[in-house]
Amino acid sequence: MGDLFPFIEGGVTAAKGFKAAGEHLGIRKNRSKRDVALIVSDAPCSAACCYTRNLVQGAPIAVTRAHVADGHARAIICNSGNANTCNANGVEIAEGMCALVEKYTGVPAGDVVVASTGVIGQPMSLEPFEKGMKKLAAGLDENGGHHAAKAIMTTDTVAKEVAVEFTIGGKLCHLGGISKGSGMIHPNMATMLCFITTDVAIAPACLQAALSDVVKDTFDMLSIDGDTSTNDMVTVLANGLAGNEEITADGANFATFKAALYQVCAKLCRIMAKDGEGATKLLTCTVTGAKDKPTAKLVAKGVICSTLLKAAVFGADANWGRVLCAIGYSGADVDVSKIDVQFISPAGVVSVCTGGSGVPFSEEDAKKVLSEDEIDVSVQLNAGNAQAVAWGCDLTYDYVKINGDYRT
Amino acid sequence: MGDLFPFIEGGVTAAKGFKAAGEHLGIRKNRSKRDVALIVSDAPCSAACCYTRNLVQGAPIAVTRAHVADGHARAIICNSGNANTCNANGVEIAEGMCALVEKYTGVPAGDVVVASTGVIGQPMSLEPFEKGMKKLAAGLDENGGHHAAKAIMTTDTVAKEVAVEFTIGGKLCHLGGISKGSGMIHPNMATMLCFITTDVAIAPACLQAALSDVVKDTFDMLSIDGDTSTNDMVTVLANGLAGNEEITADGANFATFKAALYQVCAKLCRIMAKDGEGATKLLTCTVTGAKDKPTAKLVAKGVICSTLLKAAVFGADANWGRVLCAIGYSGADVDVSKIDVQFISPAGVVSVCTGGSGVPFSEEDAKKVLSEDEIDVSVQLNAGNAQAVAWGCDLTYDYVKINGDYRT
Repeated sequence: MGDLFPFIEGGVTAAKGFKAAGEHLGIRKNRSKRDVALIVSDAPCSAACCYTRNLVQGAPIAVTRAHVADGHARAIICNSGNANTCNANGVEIAEGMCALVEKYTGVPAGDVVVASTGVIGQPMSLEPFEKGMKKLAAGLDENGGHHAAKAIMTTDTVAKEVAVEFTIGGKLCHLGGISKGSGMIHPNMATMLCFITTDVAIAPACLQAALSDVVKDTFDMLSIDGDTSTNDMVTVLANGLAGNEEITADGANFATFKAALYQVCAKLCRIMAKDGEGATKLLTCTVTGAKDKPTAKLVAKGVICSTLLKAAVFGADANWGRVLCAIGYSGADVDVSKIDVQFISPAGVVSVCTGGSGVPFSEEDAKKVLSEDEIDVSVQLNAGNAQAVAWGCDLTYDYVKINGDYRT
Repeated sequence: MGDLFPFIEGGVTAAKGFKAAGEHLGIRKNRSKRDVALIVSDAPCSAACCYTRNLVQGAPIAVTRAHVADGHARAIICNSGNANTCNANGVEIAEGMCALVEKYTGVPAGDVVVASTGVIGQPMSLEPFEKGMKKLAAGLDENGGHHAAKAIMTTDTVAKEVAVEFTIGGKLCHLGGISKGSGMIHPNMATMLCFITTDVAIAPACLQAALSDVVKDTFDMLSIDGDTSTNDMVTVLANGLAGNEEITADGANFATFKAALYQVCAKLCRIMAKDGEGATKLLTCTVTGAKDKPTAKLVAKGVICSTLLKAAVFGADANWGRVLCAIGYSGADVDVSKIDVQFISPAGVVSVCTGGSGVPFSEEDAKKVLSEDEIDVSVQLNAGNAQAVAWGCDLTYDYVKINGDYRT
């Protein structure tokens, strides 16, 4: 799972023909916090989306589903500070946001992807958009990706931007994205908000197939707190300005595109997990030797979701019994007596369990390994060749603090 | 779900013919902490057990399964401080504990229920039992229930004992239990350790049927942190000394017995939830108006398991959107647009959501209601007559503190 392609600057405006902006329009009280992002393509785009599987879904999800039903879109509008969910007039407001994008950018409302993130069930008004959309649209810039990344942040402490470049059929292509965490994240379809743009020419059905596949191995394998949000969405817009022959079927070009998409999404997962609410450490679980992929995934997700393990990792306590315990209730069909467990970090490797039983290890070494800020729990099931990775973080005092008083 | 029978003192020694003891034998370093409990019946007992569904199970579970396979047992031995799980010689040690019970009490080793709780994967020795079992057995007392309750405590802050009295066929009967939490608790079969004794005469098959049914509505509906332990077990011993005609089939007497068992288990759930690791508040979710019982249970469990809601309750923040969100991902098939939500506590009732959308409420009143130490989230689904209740607690700084350094 090494990185195939070079990372580049630019995030969501790294690809040709995309402009972005992020401004404070007044959804949030804090004037220094940008709260609305706008992303627009110069040319029509193939569009693909994955949505939260929560039964309770924000009004923007319903509106976006309708707008991308034809496989095309050209702009994305997203606010933070209010989820526009469980509001009686939510659809009206989401439609209104799209209409204002049309008014000030010329992109038809039916080609606009709309998203909201923030508190659920708070009244929301269209007024800030009516007043500020003109300014937002005027700020669209081919270097505006960073402002857009900042505007979609909620409790995130860092803006999240990743982009890569690669070639398809001799043409230089770009693919980049922005995302926001950092709580209410749990593997269940796309988690959190993520907007990706690319200049690759690709048919809508292929774009959707690539996204749906990649999401299963990336955003579905990311958990901060076990809560699946109501507003999660991953969107990819592909405008074809790289000039490659349009990808219309499986094959080498499709594989290259998917690899680039995977690399960007996996990197965003790492960044989001490390910036999980209150997190001090990135916690990954790498499972190898599974009899099949579903088993590997169940085990990896079970481990990174364990509240007790997350707290132990915060305390740099090598409580590996909690790893075994989590595997045991993960729902995976595994032979416990074959399991080996190691804790790995830049400070070294500590073997703690072999064949399902504890092995002696140096508490001092373990403390050193677990005191780093990127910890991998390596689980070898010794039952086959399938593998999986999942991303999470430690559970800290600050998670409780942030979420004990998020709304007021 | 009101209480049908009067609560009495005595816990696990409230029923006739049961003696108990709890001593420090040296499993734990802290000499002032009792760490082994012993419970013995004067007469042979029908026995029933429910076990954790974790694939990783402590050695004592395997030994107990074998010992109660014939539906009978007469004694219970349980240590805290070491889970005797993921140890290569675990079964040997658990068998050794039972043999020592036989040596000093005369109860055959094959009639002994054995349990352990504490850190997983730590080496364990039989030596403290060899040295101390004589003293423990000598201390068996018909008022010893409280010492036994103290000896099984781990991170619990209070000993957990409940007993009731009731009549069957004109005979006065007693049923009481002790249990220990308080972390690694999640609805999935029996959670935590719970030992119940009764002087009712009841056939083993009826006893198991009653326990299995009651567990589904009590311990299965209790979650502290989403982690299902490897060592959970609920055991009931019934020695028949109340002198009632033996219950051998469904009917009025069986119903009375089951109601008493439910009352004790439900009360223990409340006590355990309120004493959950780091908890400052008991959080219950009462679901009414469900189309069927499984739906009601899924919703109730989903709500009390939400990490985000638990943190909000700690902060007395009426973030009801998290209730809707949790219902949405609970897996229950519900019509979101019909859901009403209220927060209820001794300080009053606050309606926050009607028909799936927010309603205006006083933040001041909500703060007052949520500042109490027992909070009920009342969810009305308006889709039928089924109902369920689940028990949990808030998520606090202290949970993180306790679990960041539990082992060392």
